[in-house]
Amino acid sequence: MAVYIQGQGITQFGELWDRDLRSLAVEAALKALKDAKLTIKDIDALYIANMNTSAFTGQEHLGALIASELQSDKPAMRVEGACASGSLAINAAFNSLRSGSYKRVLVIGVEKMTDIEGGQATQALAAASDEEWESYYGATFPSLYALMAREHIRRFGTTREDLALISIKNHYHAVLNPIAQFKKEIKVDDVLKAPVVADPLGLLDCSPISDGAAAIILGVEEPKGKPVELVASEIATSSIALHDREDITSLDAAVKASSKAYEALKIKPSDIDIAEVHDCFTIAELIAYEDLGFAAKGRARDELRRGHYHREGKLPVNVSGGLKACGHPIGATGVKQAIEIYLQLAGLAGKRQVKKKRLKLGLTHNVGGTGATCVINIFKSEVK
Amino acid sequence: MAVYIQGQGITQFGELWDRDLRSLAVEAALKALKDAKLTIKDIDALYIANMNTSAFTGQEHLGALIASELQSDKPAMRVEGACASGSLAINAAFNSLRSGSYKRVLVIGVEKMTDIEGGQATQALAAASDEEWESYYGATFPSLYALMAREHIRRFGTTREDLALISIKNHYHAVLNPIAQFKKEIKVDDVLKAPVVADPLGLLDCSPISDGAAAIILGVEEPKGKPVELVASEIATSSIALHDREDITSLDAAVKASSKAYEALKIKPSDIDIAEVHDCFTIAELIAYEDLGFAAKGRARDELRRGHYHREGKLPVNVSGGLKACGHPIGATGVKQAIEIYLQLAGLAGKRQVKKKRLKLGLTHNVGGTGATCVINIFKSEVK
Repeated sequence: MAVYIQGQGITQFGELWDRDLRSLAVEAALKALKDAKLTIKDIDALYIANMNTSAFTGQEHLGALIASELQSDKPAMRVEGACASGSLAINAAFNSLRSGSYKRVLVIGVEKMTDIEGGQATQALAAASDEEWESYYGATFPSLYALMAREHIRRFGTTREDLALISIKNHYHAVLNPIAQFKKEIKVDDVLKAPVVADPLGLLDCSPISDGAAAIILGVEEPKGKPVELVASEIATSSIALHDREDITSLDAAVKASSKAYEALKIKPSDIDIAEVHDCFTIAELIAYEDLGFAAKGRARDELRRGHYHREGKLPVNVSGGLKACGHPIGATGVKQAIEIYLQLAGLAGKRQVKKKRLKLGLTHNVGGTGATCVINIFKSEVK
Repeated sequence: MAVYIQGQGITQFGELWDRDLRSLAVEAALKALKDAKLTIKDIDALYIANMNTSAFTGQEHLGALIASELQSDKPAMRVEGACASGSLAINAAFNSLRSGSYKRVLVIGVEKMTDIEGGQATQALAAASDEEWESYYGATFPSLYALMAREHIRRFGTTREDLALISIKNHYHAVLNPIAQFKKEIKVDDVLKAPVVADPLGLLDCSPISDGAAAIILGVEEPKGKPVELVASEIATSSIALHDREDITSLDAAVKASSKAYEALKIKPSDIDIAEVHDCFTIAELIAYEDLGFAAKGRARDELRRGHYHREGKLPVNVSGGLKACGHPIGATGVKQAIEIYLQLAGLAGKRQVKKKRLKLGLTHNVGGTGATCVINIFKSEVK
């Protein structure tokens, strides 16, 4: 059974001091309903993606919270898998539609992160790592990704300048995204001279703390206009603790999930025309190129230096601005990635529309923790 | 596509000071695998039910945590909907099987609640209510259910003695359940003279803080022996805040979800042979009888006084001991309810086996918050 994107809505991403969790979720949902020319009565179920609202706002039970704010009495549940929550919720929604239980469902990703101070936020995020064996002993996410960066540098000769190119590219992309948190171009020196967060990662290697929400409507009816189909949704898991991995310069869950998706569709990585990948840190995007088969192991930097992943390049990656520059309201991120791919495949991305001849297959790569969860969703343009 | 229970496993419920979250989840999972004569390699995906591990243990991302502890690299996600998380995870697993994505999935409900002190636990549980409009102003769950009890008493003449009968029944049942937290019979005076928690609810009207885990394997292959099929899984939502409901002596989400399930199966409430209902407080079980159509509005107490809901009665309810006496490790509860119904329908409940002639349809009623989420799962014995 085919599953299509029938509408999308997104809020501003950023430090939204005057907004609360529920108003963000509701804004994104109402925009998606308007986009799909539907009302809440047309929605059979709600899937809410959110990572750690308990620590950020003291609120759990977001399924019912958001359903009741939207005046729906339909089935609603929250799905969580750390920073991969958004794509996991899309996967649960996808299966619910293919099961025949529902005709049309609303997926809302939301996170309100700025109601607590930064140190508490870092602690709240550390709940995505192994609490007993990593965060309890002081490991933070920047420090864990810094270990991955150090090893990639040691083994493959990757440089800090290579990593900086990713941040620069994503900032460059974000300038044209109206909802982006940082609509500002940066230069290599800005990245290299930024305060160190966890050596070798500086402030401009790290995605920010953000508030925001994103919503899509998935349904089994083929929409009019420019249909975009969700053709594959694959998940893989790995050890939650980084120290249990054989190789920390690759996320084996990303390799497995993407391989499963390519196999299911009988395609090669080179068939992917556009991608949104999980650049929680610059090193994560570099590793993603290699895990997804977009570049050979250790060689992604060559393509990167050639501008391969720019909006104007051969395989545009993170045209939304990515997590780094568009912002990373955790639960919203996977849904935002799906929206960007949808807009690009449907030719609705406005000023940031990628002008490639062929724009048929788009991929989202959404990672939880240091790679313990990876979800690959692949969308296909049915525009003839 | 038919979905069957292929195995079950459960840990002791109680104050388990020497146990952590992951060891509980793993124990239940391994028991379920053993029961089904399977290994983890036979499992295509994991659905983890948990309410607020963030506040209770500082750990999120339980899908990957538990998958990796079990040495699985398969898809895993956490499903949350406050105290209804267990049944919501069963619903997500049910849809994933019916979608054709998987052949066999593991559902694990777990909560480790005793690593923080009681006041913090009450606060962690309050995250299931409306944080901005209820818990922020000091409303706790006992106080919200006390409001419901007061109104039921005012409108229908329900007495504290009626409520006590529910606690007494569930304690009586728990004596025969080896994993129950309180295997001890109590008397009316014990309940009436217990310390007041939130008038009119005393300590013995309230379910306890518990640690524990429960796991089931759901699959599309009909198992040998005594097959039990999950024939309906319906969810409804209502306002998250109690003050937004028209009638606080009924949970409209429970009425809607159960009506949908009965309609889907073309059955009447009187066709249900056994039920596990969500007795987080005694008043909740009384209301459940009425919401589920087991008794007329305001009249459930008459049936209760006649012993109708006892193990030996016409419609045995909470033969496991219920949340009150078996214990209520939040995420595990819905899964535990499913296990009890499965054991009873399959004739595997040992000393507490209900000895009715006809034991064909069993229902679980699992509630999140003060009724904002309700999940009704109905199981059918295929024993000829």
